[in-house]
Amino acid sequence: MRSTEIASDEPTRLADIVAPMFSDQSGWTRQLRDGVKVELLAGADAQDDCAVFGVDGPMEIVLGSDYVRGPKFQLYELGHLSNYDIGYYLAMANLSDIAAMGALPIALLTVIRYPRSLPDVDFTALMEGIRDACSQVGAPNVGGDIGSAERIILSASAMGIVERGRSLLRTGARPGDRLCVTGPTGIAASAQRYFGGSGTDREKLPTAKEESLLSAWRRPQALVRHGRCLSTSGLVTSCQDTSDGLKAGVQSLAAASGVGFVVEESALPVADIVAEVAQLTGGDLTSVILGDSVDFQLVFTVTADGVPRLSKSFADAGLQLTEIGYATEEHAVCLRRADGRDEDLPGVPWRHAT
Amino acid sequence: MRSTEIASDEPTRLADIVAPMFSDQSGWTRQLRDGVKVELLAGADAQDDCAVFGVDGPMEIVLGSDYVRGPKFQLYELGHLSNYDIGYYLAMANLSDIAAMGALPIALLTVIRYPRSLPDVDFTALMEGIRDACSQVGAPNVGGDIGSAERIILSASAMGIVERGRSLLRTGARPGDRLCVTGPTGIAASAQRYFGGSGTDREKLPTAKEESLLSAWRRPQALVRHGRCLSTSGLVTSCQDTSDGLKAGVQSLAAASGVGFVVEESALPVADIVAEVAQLTGGDLTSVILGDSVDFQLVFTVTADGVPRLSKSFADAGLQLTEIGYATEEHAVCLRRADGRDEDLPGVPWRHAT
Repeated sequence: MRSTEIASDEPTRLADIVAPMFSDQSGWTRQLRDGVKVELLAGADAQDDCAVFGVDGPMEIVLGSDYVRGPKFQLYELGHLSNYDIGYYLAMANLSDIAAMGALPIALLTVIRYPRSLPDVDFTALMEGIRDACSQVGAPNVGGDIGSAERIILSASAMGIVERGRSLLRTGARPGDRLCVTGPTGIAASAQRYFGGSGTDREKLPTAKEESLLSAWRRPQALVRHGRCLSTSGLVTSCQDTSDGLKAGVQSLAAASGVGFVVEESALPVADIVAEVAQLTGGDLTSVILGDSVDFQLVFTVTADGVPRLSKSFADAGLQLTEIGYATEEHAVCLRRADGRDEDLPGVPWRHAT
Repeated sequence: MRSTEIASDEPTRLADIVAPMFSDQSGWTRQLRDGVKVELLAGADAQDDCAVFGVDGPMEIVLGSDYVRGPKFQLYELGHLSNYDIGYYLAMANLSDIAAMGALPIALLTVIRYPRSLPDVDFTALMEGIRDACSQVGAPNVGGDIGSAERIILSASAMGIVERGRSLLRTGARPGDRLCVTGPTGIAASAQRYFGGSGTDREKLPTAKEESLLSAWRRPQALVRHGRCLSTSGLVTSCQDTSDGLKAGVQSLAAASGVGFVVEESALPVADIVAEVAQLTGGDLTSVILGDSVDFQLVFTVTADGVPRLSKSFADAGLQLTEIGYATEEHAVCLRRADGRDEDLPGVPWRHAT
């Protein structure tokens, strides 16, 4: 292959092309004429869910963007998701990045392009999905860009505010910190396995269970209350959402913080529906839980002595967290099986699909 | 046509579907636990270049998003624009929205999706175009989203800061205010007329002139210095960029401010190259100047007695402005021809093309 034809995959491009272009960006500052200052606390080089800016005053601003495949979701193509659903998803996927920073979302900006032939009813449904997701977290959709394209294209940005010094970054986990997750993962992937699988003669689940699988795609929730609880606690040392899967999340906290993790298999929260679909489809349960499932849970680290206090404040707020492991000095990330053996984390690693 | 098949155009959708969904949004506030407050000063209902937030402290934050057709630009398809060029354009189109608010850009977030087969050299060129445009205005590209899609998809968001109370909105023009523009318009449209036209047996321009036409697409400039001069002057009552064309800009200032405008044909700045291409292609010069040409100039209103002071501060900074008309109580927008006749503004009205 000639060098001009090489097309690297995404992680390679991020590492080899994008990262060098934006190295040493954090720390950049800019001033208005009267001395008002803004500082980039975490830029592209931080590779966090959002960029973080410190501004004069008592808060930081976080800002992130996510493109959503939407009409290219397999479950949309199969007719299981509506235009309302992909609008809702677009908003929540972006708002989840704000939640993962421990911030309060204050704005969503949406880019909605569509073929001229898209009927008004479908366009309206899309916008209503966005509107309702925004209402759900209490942040306004403040505009963006609408217009035509050859197919539906969905992208958005979200902005949030957080108390000065309280943004939750991926860096900051230290050996001994406890690794926690806000809830079970693998549900979104199980929905794809169940509805998108080829085994059509396979046993069918009751409608209520099918609906619970689809709700991971139809009504994903940005965990803003969880994120706020984490950031205001002062006990959390690193955080991100599981939009690339739990394995990818843990690996990324490890890489950014310069630590390793032991993940206890027996401690992983398991949703009944995930276990049921794994059995039905002959999949390995732990791989599904850790793999590239877009569940928008938060995975984070807490100082060892902070866990009881954080658990209490979560319980007081009616929220849940599960301790699933701990950070190590050794940089490897491993799964401790029930019998005590340590293995590499199973599950599909993160490679964004087309 | 059944009602479920109706597919309205974009202005109709904005007016009938989007606007009612986001009415009365401006004024929304949100607080962090310790009382830190943020207020949405101009939301989607304001239909400005950006949304504007007031935060505790001495500044306002502006935020906007623009999708860019990029690979669907006719001049890209014809081979006149490179991947570097459309990356540069993406950044500048978004940064121009910040300039139009009178703000200092502090961040660009980019969404870059591409077919897996896109060679690294092309991807790199795209990113370098973005990087260089950001350097040009001194704002960092703080991240966003990269990944695959079936074709190149380019979208971005930009954020800026401006002194409290100084954001330049589209509302605020009052009868008697002077209408001004920062420079000649119609160059981008002339490039399309010249290179995209069907008359291949037409006279060819010298290479230097062809290059100057293409530079409107290859190196558009966000007029940040102009915008800052306008906002800090305290003399400007409304502003927007001419990314939808000068006519659309004037009409939109009129609609948002509840005024009309008289545009003096003889006062319109004319670039030699625009006149030359209009003659070569048999087009009406004034229609080209006013029509849907993406030139990223700023069109704005100034208090009548403020014009001399603003002109001086522009001249001191080595910048230019041209007075092209004035605001009227009557809501109509008209062109005053050299012979004194008033007509509707000529030129293609804004309808985003596919």
